[in-house]
Amino acid sequence: MKRTAPPALLDALKSRFGNRCSTAAVVRDQHGRDESPFDAAPPDAVVFAENTAEVAEVVKLCAQHGTPIIPYGAGSSIEGHLLAVQGGISIDVNAMNAVLAVNPEDLTVTVQPGVTRKQLNEAIRDTGLFFPIDPGADASIGGMSATRASGTNAVRYGTMRENVLALEVVTASGEIIRTGTRAKKSSAGYDLTRLFVGSEGTLGVITEITLRIYPIPEAISAAVCSFPSVEGAVRTTIETIQLGVPIARVELIDRHSVRMVNTHSKLTLPEKPMLLMEFHGSPAGVEEQAQIVQEIAAGNGGEAFQWATTPEERTRLWTARHNAYFAAIQSKPGCRAVTTDACVPISRLAECLLASVEEADAGSLPYFLLGHVGDGNFHFGYLVDPAQPQELDEAERLNEKLVARALRLGGTCTGEHGIGLHKMGFLVEEAGPGAIAMMRSIKQALDPQGIFNPGKIFAA
Amino acid sequence: MKRTAPPALLDALKSRFGNRCSTAAVVRDQHGRDESPFDAAPPDAVVFAENTAEVAEVVKLCAQHGTPIIPYGAGSSIEGHLLAVQGGISIDVNAMNAVLAVNPEDLTVTVQPGVTRKQLNEAIRDTGLFFPIDPGADASIGGMSATRASGTNAVRYGTMRENVLALEVVTASGEIIRTGTRAKKSSAGYDLTRLFVGSEGTLGVITEITLRIYPIPEAISAAVCSFPSVEGAVRTTIETIQLGVPIARVELIDRHSVRMVNTHSKLTLPEKPMLLMEFHGSPAGVEEQAQIVQEIAAGNGGEAFQWATTPEERTRLWTARHNAYFAAIQSKPGCRAVTTDACVPISRLAECLLASVEEADAGSLPYFLLGHVGDGNFHFGYLVDPAQPQELDEAERLNEKLVARALRLGGTCTGEHGIGLHKMGFLVEEAGPGAIAMMRSIKQALDPQGIFNPGKIFAA
Repeated sequence: MKRTAPPALLDALKSRFGNRCSTAAVVRDQHGRDESPFDAAPPDAVVFAENTAEVAEVVKLCAQHGTPIIPYGAGSSIEGHLLAVQGGISIDVNAMNAVLAVNPEDLTVTVQPGVTRKQLNEAIRDTGLFFPIDPGADASIGGMSATRASGTNAVRYGTMRENVLALEVVTASGEIIRTGTRAKKSSAGYDLTRLFVGSEGTLGVITEITLRIYPIPEAISAAVCSFPSVEGAVRTTIETIQLGVPIARVELIDRHSVRMVNTHSKLTLPEKPMLLMEFHGSPAGVEEQAQIVQEIAAGNGGEAFQWATTPEERTRLWTARHNAYFAAIQSKPGCRAVTTDACVPISRLAECLLASVEEADAGSLPYFLLGHVGDGNFHFGYLVDPAQPQELDEAERLNEKLVARALRLGGTCTGEHGIGLHKMGFLVEEAGPGAIAMMRSIKQALDPQGIFNPGKIFAA
Repeated sequence: MKRTAPPALLDALKSRFGNRCSTAAVVRDQHGRDESPFDAAPPDAVVFAENTAEVAEVVKLCAQHGTPIIPYGAGSSIEGHLLAVQGGISIDVNAMNAVLAVNPEDLTVTVQPGVTRKQLNEAIRDTGLFFPIDPGADASIGGMSATRASGTNAVRYGTMRENVLALEVVTASGEIIRTGTRAKKSSAGYDLTRLFVGSEGTLGVITEITLRIYPIPEAISAAVCSFPSVEGAVRTTIETIQLGVPIARVELIDRHSVRMVNTHSKLTLPEKPMLLMEFHGSPAGVEEQAQIVQEIAAGNGGEAFQWATTPEERTRLWTARHNAYFAAIQSKPGCRAVTTDACVPISRLAECLLASVEEADAGSLPYFLLGHVGDGNFHFGYLVDPAQPQELDEAERLNEKLVARALRLGGTCTGEHGIGLHKMGFLVEEAGPGAIAMMRSIKQALDPQGIFNPGKIFAA
């Protein structure tokens, strides 16, 4: 169902926002796509909002016309969240990029949704604190909240679920509400904060986010360790987690990814499955953790740890890791990646992941494998030529098998990327019709006209 | 509004459940009260359910008649959650007390709602794992989920919000749904798990809970430290948290509480404000943490740490802490406690707490003060004779001032006890009318007849 913005709405937006309301094809096209393999579905117009009141104005105008609204941050979704599949207005919040409050003594910070994770860490650098959540892209905090994002540090610091304390939200009627406070915990009514975290723009527009931040650890040490097989790396991870070692990061990078990263980032890592690890704590604590993990790795065929001792070396390694997705995309010109995102209980990780490696190896598509394996979460990226439908089909078939396996093993179809356009069917399988009906009735209650990012999470 | 169970419903329940459906006055009275100062409001009948299917049957029968349902676990609420203020059926889930699955390799456990926190820890003792959330009472896991409970370990391990992974819930239509999976993280749709955690029985009946559990730390050491004033204890806590010391427990016990605890538990703690602390980690890590905190305490007038080195001594101390509430109640025969539960950002804790001490000292009521101060959460208990309305009035006036101050300082009216009957007005102040309207529309969507624990969280 298309719900194209009527001329009256476009006129009203243009007269209110002037050249901050654009209907230029190039602007619309840019806002109607993301990093997913889907073709662009441009919105009818893009409004560049500068503050919460403006967001509320746009929502009220759209509500009058029953026109869809898609909030737009960094554009780094890989699940099609930003496509205006029913038409409507994209609200670009990139100009809402102020760090509104830093409360170092409470380890909290309040930001506007257009602030990116790197901007935030720049802004608080002098306080000795940092914000740990780090999806591969330099995503916006608004988008990260909306998709319940995580990244490499989640194994120790949790995800957006654990790290968003409070929100300001514009509701379907254009009202501005607040959820939560800066208190570390609360039992005051329904947890609206957690309801909006992960709601993918379907319940309201997030206009302010209060986050937990953390002291930069006294000691940080990073290491890489290669393994003869993916299995050795996975088993090392599982044993580390089961022993309760508070490892800060433990990332699996398969040999394909290593090769792509070496090319892209001019590194010379051995082209074997590899764990990239980081330890945070006191100097003695870090030493202790690293010692235990080295022993576990040795028991699983791991080669000697290579330590990255200086901050520069560490940054180089982690930047390479964060760029792995883009390194992969660039390894096959013109390709797109169909990305999997299953997450399973750690005891089932080896079973789930190794069977999927076997299936991918048996297929015809180039692929890469990256894993936040400490959380039981991993990503295959199957590289497809979007002009070749049979490649897309093969990638989707691999993904389907992988998700079915993950669900069978007690896991989820998406650990951190969200449902978007891509996993609506999997969500029904995972949650079951009763839970889906409950989600839909919440959606209906909070957004009766269905104007917020329609066609995402639930099939229209 | 009374919605007394009609005879047809009572007949149906009796014919289905036999003597597991009781209308005996003593049973109804017991299920219509809790640890709050409110007078009992007995349900019309109590059904002792033995499994999820039976809960669903009761819900379906009640739904047919529009009759209220109040889930009943350990009965340890202190906010009036269990009172059948509109009449209805109490579903007692104490017979649903099986530990259904222990997955030590994933650090998860799945239990029925009647399992209490102590039962759970008994059941998993041999695995070397433990469940950290510990409200004062030996509460049921179902009740703890419903109130988003926490306790002394929350400063390190989080609350029920962070530690419930998945739920089974009976909905208003009597359908059985599952929220979440055993995966550590997920971005799959709306966070129904977190919506039910803290919903106080108003959205459905929780019939199964999957929880995170943790390795028992290699080293544990507990210590008490007395201070000349509450202020010194609070400042020690604040500095400890702000330095990022991963202290596992840091509890404030004021001189009144120490006196009551000494009497009740036959201890000889010095009758001064005191911090009761615990450190978890490796032997070296624990040593390191304790060293830092000792220095901070010394800088704030703390007397020498008294170490509880054996498990028996530790247990004795923490049992005394957990019994503090009951020790206080017993110190004034026939009294009830009006309990506060504010939680503020740690930077505002000294201001919030010390002003409230001053107000309590200026009043006429005996009181005690206990604090999960590492989280910015503290409880005054004003001891009142329920037969003396002016004592209740004074306690409520003190609480109102305290809550107003906490809200002004960016905090919440309830850190862990929930809203219940007692804080409905404060919730409106805290959340604002827009957020309350949103909560109400969720309630309306999920429970259109308003049969689940009506009159709680929101004024009827």
